[in-house]
Amino acid sequence: MRNLKLTLAYVGTRYAGWQIQPHAATIQGLLQERMSRMLQEPVSLLGAGRTDAGVHARGQVASVGIGSRVPPEGLRRGLNARLPGDVAVLQVDEVPAGFHARTSARGKEYRYTLIRGDVVSPFERPFVAPVRGALDVGAMRAAAALFVGRHDFTSLCASDTDVVDRVRTLHDVSVVEAGARVEIRVRGDGFLRHMVRTLAGTLIETGRGRIPPAAIPEILAARDRRRAGPCAAPCGLVLERVFYGEEA
Amino acid sequence: MRNLKLTLAYVGTRYAGWQIQPHAATIQGLLQERMSRMLQEPVSLLGAGRTDAGVHARGQVASVGIGSRVPPEGLRRGLNARLPGDVAVLQVDEVPAGFHARTSARGKEYRYTLIRGDVVSPFERPFVAPVRGALDVGAMRAAAALFVGRHDFTSLCASDTDVVDRVRTLHDVSVVEAGARVEIRVRGDGFLRHMVRTLAGTLIETGRGRIPPAAIPEILAARDRRRAGPCAAPCGLVLERVFYGEEA
Repeated sequence: MRNLKLTLAYVGTRYAGWQIQPHAATIQGLLQERMSRMLQEPVSLLGAGRTDAGVHARGQVASVGIGSRVPPEGLRRGLNARLPGDVAVLQVDEVPAGFHARTSARGKEYRYTLIRGDVVSPFERPFVAPVRGALDVGAMRAAAALFVGRHDFTSLCASDTDVVDRVRTLHDVSVVEAGARVEIRVRGDGFLRHMVRTLAGTLIETGRGRIPPAAIPEILAARDRRRAGPCAAPCGLVLERVFYGEEA
Repeated sequence: MRNLKLTLAYVGTRYAGWQIQPHAATIQGLLQERMSRMLQEPVSLLGAGRTDAGVHARGQVASVGIGSRVPPEGLRRGLNARLPGDVAVLQVDEVPAGFHARTSARGKEYRYTLIRGDVVSPFERPFVAPVRGALDVGAMRAAAALFVGRHDFTSLCASDTDVVDRVRTLHDVSVVEAGARVEIRVRGDGFLRHMVRTLAGTLIETGRGRIPPAAIPEILAARDRRRAGPCAAPCGLVLERVFYGEEA
């Protein structure tokens, strides 16, 4: 068996997320189906992160073991020819047998994009979350800095999660303003379910003056999902990159 | 009756074009329905250009007579609140009774975007036309320049059109290269059905070496649709602006 690393981009709007599910269109399900048909063998993809329904990716990574001797470039082209326009295989690399898209990952980077104002360009609408009213970006920046570091992120994590260890390290949380856009960029060693969207939702509340930046340490210390802001809409979130090895 | 000018943006993917039709989702139909419901009066929009099925707009213009005394800003907000995310009202202006979106227009600008290479970003895919193989952009530029001026554009016009006068003036046809993107920008005083897409299709053939730039004057002089290239895919086309008065 060979082991391959696939780098993927997708617009998540039409999908019920990454993870395969019966009776629902998922990115993993779509890729496995098209790849199995192309290679004439069953395949099982391991994704670096399980993006939620409606969440996008510019650099999702999946690993897969195959028996076929198809060259990486031939697999990339063949898959892209078989995939709909909202899912693309950007790169295929041959990797050592021990490589696993999720457990080998050192970190990930997400971007959450807000648009202020009451008209959002229809060309951007699928990829952003509109926010009405004023946002205090300075307050958002102050709050963002307080999420950086090693913390128990229970307060930002979906309450139905069954993951026991909720300690993660965020290396960077920055808020970048460009005209009507406000981007929240988050880089860390690992992420819990709904963590980035709840972080974004909490920063939006900070920007609106409903949560003071000084409350962030208490919110984290409480380890109580009810203390943080709401989980922001999935359409604003993009998984930008997964880091392996030294580039992390 | 008041006369209003609406500036509109839309992603045409889900629509059967601008013009209202029975049993099909159209931009005009959608806007008239939402506006009539909002104002509680029947309205009839006049569009500057009838964009085809799947064609987009960043600056379509429509005029409409209404009895309602709603302020322009209130109409803009109310309509945007009632419209799906792929259609937006950018601006509403009060205009003199004689203003007509189509007949008052002095010109229009369209942009057709090609993407080279075998992977197109899913984030761009809805708004571009992928082109495989090499494109000679220099040849495209040489051909583009030969379309500028006052010509009978029968050769670039849908053969089923019933418009008798097919003489139009193109003020500018430019080919702009930026990385994998090649944009064809066309500005003129008026456009026939399929004219920009057939111009784009002809320039693509030129870029591929199938039509020499020197053949353009003959193609125009032939007044024969079969002499030009194919009508390029609608998804690559955007109506950028409609000009009125001195800005033309």
